[in-house]
Amino acid sequence: MRFEALAIEGLPEVAAGDDLAGLIAERVAPVSGDVLVLAHKVVSKAEGRVRRLADVSPTPRAAELAAQHGKDPRHVQVVLDESVSVLRAARGVLICETRHGFVCANAGVDASNARRGAADEVILLPVDPDASARHLRARLRSLTGVGPGVLITDSFGRAWRHGQVDVAVGCAGIIPLDDWRGRTDASGRELHATWIAIADELAAAADLTRTKDGAQPVVLLHGEAVARHVSEADGAGAAAIRRPKDEDLFR
Amino acid sequence: MRFEALAIEGLPEVAAGDDLAGLIAERVAPVSGDVLVLAHKVVSKAEGRVRRLADVSPTPRAAELAAQHGKDPRHVQVVLDESVSVLRAARGVLICETRHGFVCANAGVDASNARRGAADEVILLPVDPDASARHLRARLRSLTGVGPGVLITDSFGRAWRHGQVDVAVGCAGIIPLDDWRGRTDASGRELHATWIAIADELAAAADLTRTKDGAQPVVLLHGEAVARHVSEADGAGAAAIRRPKDEDLFR
Repeated sequence: MRFEALAIEGLPEVAAGDDLAGLIAERVAPVSGDVLVLAHKVVSKAEGRVRRLADVSPTPRAAELAAQHGKDPRHVQVVLDESVSVLRAARGVLICETRHGFVCANAGVDASNARRGAADEVILLPVDPDASARHLRARLRSLTGVGPGVLITDSFGRAWRHGQVDVAVGCAGIIPLDDWRGRTDASGRELHATWIAIADELAAAADLTRTKDGAQPVVLLHGEAVARHVSEADGAGAAAIRRPKDEDLFR
Repeated sequence: MRFEALAIEGLPEVAAGDDLAGLIAERVAPVSGDVLVLAHKVVSKAEGRVRRLADVSPTPRAAELAAQHGKDPRHVQVVLDESVSVLRAARGVLICETRHGFVCANAGVDASNARRGAADEVILLPVDPDASARHLRARLRSLTGVGPGVLITDSFGRAWRHGQVDVAVGCAGIIPLDDWRGRTDASGRELHATWIAIADELAAAADLTRTKDGAQPVVLLHGEAVARHVSEADGAGAAAIRRPKDEDLFR
């Protein structure tokens, strides 16, 4: 099987209230079975999920963490506002559980690729990235007649590996996990553990087509290797990939 | 930028001593800048990194862990033989640090996609997957005149996310980590943390073209989005992605 991945060029700077699906539909015509992968920042900007540090008053806890880790106390306050818990604080990074239940650095709060000239703005994750994906999918369907899979991504670090990879924080019309447990391999041997995080692999594939200075938040994935994971129903979303706290061995 | 990913069809069952690069070169003609992605099992089989459980005598520790977790004590013994430490044992899985320094379930020891009819064989990771990748690359260069990037992968679980994604366990001719720290984003803002695990994203992309019952261990990645990460030198390998134990916050 095969697929191709292509970064969409020419998307303008997006601001709160912009019709993101409309801007995408002007530049790409997805066919049935395609997946559109969006870096969360463009979704967050369109949804106004941006905070100005000038408007933030740090609590004593934020001030203390900021002093310990050489960070801006207002930035730390925004991270705490987006978190339900801080798992670790070390080397200038807070590893947090976000309000969605994702575990990642700084609760997904980031200043890079904020608006041009907006030096004190930070971008948050969408409030409900699966809902964002569903809304974008419905709007794309109404504009183009096709409801592609929609995937919203962020770059997450990993506990035991250097660097970040893009993973799914929201999706609609994509089967997020492909469960082979109880099915058989090429020799007819039962597979006991094989459970593939398709949405995360799609996110990683899309990221390869971008540069971090290229302003290419939207990537099209096309081909049967992708289409087999696209569903008519919006499905369980990326929320299905979160490991529940009571199954977490590393907290 | 763009790339495409294509699973290579028709590779025969591979056994110890087979010329894996030769079998690949008969089926695909990589061009400069391409990456060939190999599921580690096909590499391990060619290298004879297979053990028969009938030949394994479990130690008391293996027998105890096996009894606690409902596993075959001989399988557990093989896992312990491949490990320098066991980080967690729970829910039928041993989370181990392998002799290479990778943290993964069961030290990468797996029975699925072992030889047809070889019910008691388990497959190990290559002894030195980066060396395996370098050797395959050199052999492909001598056969085809082109030295593609070579990536050897395994499916790893993640601490806080369900399911597995393919990651790099070995590579040659691929820049494993793309370091944007100190460089700037599209607005000229300095990036403080952006450090992309390219080899892992390539691994994940390739896995999308496979089915777990399809006997398609080899995937070709082609296009400028991939070629920009291929180097003339074999480079640091996937070993560069391991997070050293003294930087590990979750052990």
